Amino acid sequence: MPTKPLYGAIEAGGTKIVCAAGYGPTEIPEGCRAVIPTAAPGPTLAAMAEFFTQITAKCGALAAIGIASFGPVDVDRRSTTWGRILATPKPGWSDTSMVAPLERFGCPIAIDTDVNAAALAEARLGAGAGLGSLAYVTVGTGIGGGVVVADRTIKGLLHPEMGHIRVQRDLRDVDFPGICPFHGDCLEGLASGPAVLARWQSHAENLPEGHPGREILGDYLGQLAATIALLISCERIVFGGGVASGGRLLPYIRRSASHWLGGYLPVEARAGGFDRYITAPGLGDFAGAAGAFLLAMQAGQLC
Amino acid sequence: MPTKPLYGAIEAGGTKIVCAAGYGPTEIPEGCRAVIPTAAPGPTLAAMAEFFTQITAKCGALAAIGIASFGPVDVDRRSTTWGRILATPKPGWSDTSMVAPLERFGCPIAIDTDVNAAALAEARLGAGAGLGSLAYVTVGTGIGGGVVVADRTIKGLLHPEMGHIRVQRDLRDVDFPGICPFHGDCLEGLASGPAVLARWQSHAENLPEGHPGREILGDYLGQLAATIALLISCERIVFGGGVASGGRLLPYIRRSASHWLGGYLPVEARAGGFDRYITAPGLGDFAGAAGAFLLAMQAGQLC
Repeated sequence: MPTKPLYGAIEAGGTKIVCAAGYGPTEIPEGCRAVIPTAAPGPTLAAMAEFFTQITAKCGALAAIGIASFGPVDVDRRSTTWGRILATPKPGWSDTSMVAPLERFGCPIAIDTDVNAAALAEARLGAGAGLGSLAYVTVGTGIGGGVVVADRTIKGLLHPEMGHIRVQRDLRDVDFPGICPFHGDCLEGLASGPAVLARWQSHAENLPEGHPGREILGDYLGQLAATIALLISCERIVFGGGVASGGRLLPYIRRSASHWLGGYLPVEARAGGFDRYITAPGLGDFAGAAGAFLLAMQAGQLC
Repeated sequence: MPTKPLYGAIEAGGTKIVCAAGYGPTEIPEGCRAVIPTAAPGPTLAAMAEFFTQITAKCGALAAIGIASFGPVDVDRRSTTWGRILATPKPGWSDTSMVAPLERFGCPIAIDTDVNAAALAEARLGAGAGLGSLAYVTVGTGIGGGVVVADRTIKGLLHPEMGHIRVQRDLRDVDFPGICPFHGDCLEGLASGPAVLARWQSHAENLPEGHPGREILGDYLGQLAATIALLISCERIVFGGGVASGGRLLPYIRRSASHWLGGYLPVEARAGGFDRYITAPGLGDFAGAAGAFLLAMQAGQLC
């Protein structure tokens, strides 16, 4: 009798690495999940591999492993540095392979960015369930975005890095130079958590009702939404992360996107209006790990 | 003995509709090509259907038909208005079905935008041959863009409409309000052929060496290239169309894209530098028709 395939899933973030094994995103047996603090790569990756060694001893071989990783990471399978973290300010992590410690398990491995994985999970199981295409934007310490088209995440030269687009400045905000070390006042330099703190000495979620910061942040993020709609034409755009959390900025983001699109795209006719087009995540914090499972399941079918 | 499948290809533009039949983009038998002026939809589409009736009488049944159409067009197969031209200023064409007159041929039909089809052709046979992802931008009467990822064009809410993104204005150009009826000074409102003519009473290709217009247009188009790289991360970006023609603007576009990216993406390491990343088309005017053949061949295999 065939047994159900067991998948490994890894969500590698800047502060912690969540490892899990299960038969799918919502079928994780008792004791098949561990959280490892993101320390130096050597011990961190050793702990990750050790978790899966224990899992396979207990539950049998893994059918595939999916990794949803912080970036920048080489996700091009044809590249000689596939699976490696690229130049990063995280001490010791530049050029570290996320996949090498897992090769001992002899199963297909898929790796993608955390936000691409989250986009995949939201497209399949969350806010975009039933839609073929979706963009997932997270607004927190940085601003990142992932994209799913036809049930696959997109990548190529690298992977989407949409936090670094430029935006039209709000006239009330022109004195703030932005904090992006590369671009100064790109979107991430203006609307990420640290940019909000630098400008208004407050977390975005604590800006009071009526504070112009809400409108300004919503405007900048809405410009990203409009740009996504024009370039990628996806069927839904999801905003998650601490700065966008709780949906407090969503009304401002929608209003801004609608303003900048100027009636050009059929958002009303084909997406049911901006309230349905631009939404909060459906899976909350679970999107990354769920996406890692889906990546594993895709890899298991492909190989 | 099995015969080679015969495909129909249609490139529907604002002034003419090119119809062809063949065994592939470069295998079009003598007499299997016709150019129909784009007049009122009734007689135009009747002439198109008549062409294929004659072809099938002479050469046998078509295996599939691919249409590379002007937009906006509904390219969502699940939609009840699939294959129809959406609201357009072209007299009589709004809500006209491009596919209905072809259903009598009883074969699969694929329809996509002209620029998505051109992107597909460039990715397979032209400037991006061997690459999995490519964006194709045409700069002429309007500015349009198509995208291929993993050998498929992208679509969703609608299709890419990237000509309408906003750009940072050049300080020498702030007095020009732009000509886009929706947005005024979006990219198309600033850098399309009519915008160039309105501003400098000259076609872009006739702007003399040293005219600031070259730098300004290159800057605006380079901002689109940078935005494409950040959002879609495709492996090559191709600029075609009258305004970009002959590659005269390419050095300015590359310089601008490099400036706005600020060293953030691995264009040197992974794409061989901006000279290879941002290029002229490889197929010239043939990209649209070639793409229509490729769409037909994809449809023939899928159905």
